[in-house]
Amino acid sequence: MEFKLDQATQVLERTPGVFRAMLSGLPDVWTKPNEGPDTFSAFDNLGHLVHGERTDWIPRARIILAQGPDCRFAPVDRFAQYEESRGKTTEQLLDEFAALRSENLATLRAWRLSDAQLALEGEHPAFGRVSLRQLLSTWVAHDLGHIAQTSRVLAKQYREAVGPWVAFLPVLTR
Amino acid sequence: MEFKLDQATQVLERTPGVFRAMLSGLPDVWTKPNEGPDTFSAFDNLGHLVHGERTDWIPRARIILAQGPDCRFAPVDRFAQYEESRGKTTEQLLDEFAALRSENLATLRAWRLSDAQLALEGEHPAFGRVSLRQLLSTWVAHDLGHIAQTSRVLAKQYREAVGPWVAFLPVLTR
Repeated sequence: MEFKLDQATQVLERTPGVFRAMLSGLPDVWTKPNEGPDTFSAFDNLGHLVHGERTDWIPRARIILAQGPDCRFAPVDRFAQYEESRGKTTEQLLDEFAALRSENLATLRAWRLSDAQLALEGEHPAFGRVSLRQLLSTWVAHDLGHIAQTSRVLAKQYREAVGPWVAFLPVLTR
Repeated sequence: MEFKLDQATQVLERTPGVFRAMLSGLPDVWTKPNEGPDTFSAFDNLGHLVHGERTDWIPRARIILAQGPDCRFAPVDRFAQYEESRGKTTEQLLDEFAALRSENLATLRAWRLSDAQLALEGEHPAFGRVSLRQLLSTWVAHDLGHIAQTSRVLAKQYREAVGPWVAFLPVLTR
């Protein structure tokens, strides 16, 4: 499937609602455990997406669109949410994510990006030249990856409880 | 995490809303592609959950609770939805899933299962004796597995589009 802006937006605009449906009102016993050291709980996944709205997708798109002398992105801190989410509730993060995403999609739509703009490039700190089209595709795939990761970490809490069924549930052993 | 009926229900009651948030109004270009032969599209994942509401969890729980002379479960047809969902829209399947799940959870709650009942066993066609507690835990993990699978198959549509970012997106290569 080729990247198309309107199709990408169809996924991006749904993600806050998916997290709300999955996590709103769900107690900490589900949302706080993770998959081991340096992994994300459901709560961490949500905080990570909030952080990305602030520092990753739209800020990087701005760097590409500006085409200034230095098109290099700042690295993203994958663990920033451990600090940033401290003391917040799941509900607060859900609201924050929905508000930031809606703002960012309004920005994206207002740009009315042309094919020529989507082909503009920036410099990724790890793997060099990347296009705006690739950045926006990654925004979509990254959302979906964190929906998958969130449901996986929830599922893993029942890894023992399912007994022999673990053999039929690949989500528990990934 | 040990299985507790009220905590299991907290996940089970959310799943139809998660699928609605993810797939309602999303066009076929997203919902119909799969991950290759004998794999599920997003639409197939939803149809598979509908089929499970009819034939898997509550019917198997009934077999266990009845403790009749034959406690063996009928095998579940993992591909039944290819036929059953034919001609239906995503919206129809979302409505069907929500209605069936709500009915099944009402049944589950009305049983007011005791610890002794949760320890009762049935016979799984592939791996023998399993408890009601394990069956209900599997219902939860199975839901979450299909949320993960659904977001993964959507993400994979952008496997090429993300360019070099594929290296940072494990969801695209699983």
